[in-house]
Amino acid sequence: MKKFAVIVAGGSGQRMGSDIPKQFLLLKGKPLLQYTLQTFLKTYSDLQIILVLPHADIETGEEMVCKMNMEKRVQITTGGATRFHSVQNGLNEIRERSIIFVHDGVRCLVTEQLIADCYQQALEKGSAIPAVTPTDSLRVEQDGDSQTIDRNKVRIIQTPQTFISGILLPAFNQQYQPSFTDEATVVEAAGNKVHLIDGDYDNLKITRPIDLVIAEKILEAQLTS
Amino acid sequence: MKKFAVIVAGGSGQRMGSDIPKQFLLLKGKPLLQYTLQTFLKTYSDLQIILVLPHADIETGEEMVCKMNMEKRVQITTGGATRFHSVQNGLNEIRERSIIFVHDGVRCLVTEQLIADCYQQALEKGSAIPAVTPTDSLRVEQDGDSQTIDRNKVRIIQTPQTFISGILLPAFNQQYQPSFTDEATVVEAAGNKVHLIDGDYDNLKITRPIDLVIAEKILEAQLTS
Repeated sequence: MKKFAVIVAGGSGQRMGSDIPKQFLLLKGKPLLQYTLQTFLKTYSDLQIILVLPHADIETGEEMVCKMNMEKRVQITTGGATRFHSVQNGLNEIRERSIIFVHDGVRCLVTEQLIADCYQQALEKGSAIPAVTPTDSLRVEQDGDSQTIDRNKVRIIQTPQTFISGILLPAFNQQYQPSFTDEATVVEAAGNKVHLIDGDYDNLKITRPIDLVIAEKILEAQLTS
Repeated sequence: MKKFAVIVAGGSGQRMGSDIPKQFLLLKGKPLLQYTLQTFLKTYSDLQIILVLPHADIETGEEMVCKMNMEKRVQITTGGATRFHSVQNGLNEIRERSIIFVHDGVRCLVTEQLIADCYQQALEKGSAIPAVTPTDSLRVEQDGDSQTIDRNKVRIIQTPQTFISGILLPAFNQQYQPSFTDEATVVEAAGNKVHLIDGDYDNLKITRPIDLVIAEKILEAQLTS
């Protein structure tokens, strides 16, 4: 089936201590975001990318895609006020029955394997939400008190959150709610069940300066394996 | 007040892909565990360490402590079948009214600042459980279904879990329960409330090979700051 990846890259470089938006920080000489795009493009030759960027970064994004020589497969659109609105803008470009990946631009270590696993499950069950189990103890805090929770029941959610278009597109016609923190919550609010799938501990979201160093090491390991 | 640190180091090197128990893996030429001990010893000159090691590692531990010239301040005892039993063995050595830190040996990046913060709060409130807020979305899985949970209410628990002896020692006289995954759960089961405190994102638990690389980078940053 036809495949689309809506790649959302709206972060600033603030927490990274940089003026450069984090999606354009360099990892071994190339912008983070370029790794993300390349892995999706490589996984399926019939996959189209809709890259959602803040208005201020559109030009930088266009230059990057041009250098990659991928203008035909990567379309750029402008982000909105929240993640929901950004993804909504991206989805507006999709009319076809398809499998749609929604992915954080700064998860630049996503593998072809994880993308293929998500595709397969979304095709069979309608959705695939990659998730891993925490390695530390967890508690829930409420009204100044806290309670332990069984970490074996908790899942840390990653992307690409992957859906069949018939489920994802109607869900994004809903009115925005502040509880829409990811695509899974949007799809659930529309009355659908979501299905988790094993994620990948190395599928890191680049958030802090140290993450760039970690990403470089994981990348080296991926390239030599 | 007198201070004790019960440092638990019972891990194997399995997940690290090494035959060396992970607490003895080298970080810039020194065993991980040595960093952990040094930071506690440096923070307070009246602090005594009770190091809990698996039987097979006692000799390696003794050699390390001897090289550090810290035999007077570090006592070694043998671990038990679970974390609860290991900590219990360590606490058996403590008779004095004191503040007691219970710490993972492989959290070798713990700072003097965090130790001092935990001490202060334990003195005032009876306990201090360092915790940080997750950066990813979370779900709870049950019976094949999953539900989103508000990540702003979830805390990732670290060590040193710190208590006043009058709370911690009696709690460890309880019968073991499988729900005793850390010291906070033991203290709660004994009818006491525990108090969280801001942890430190860099206070990493060395679990996977990549963590050693990350630890080295954080250590470099700490040494130059």
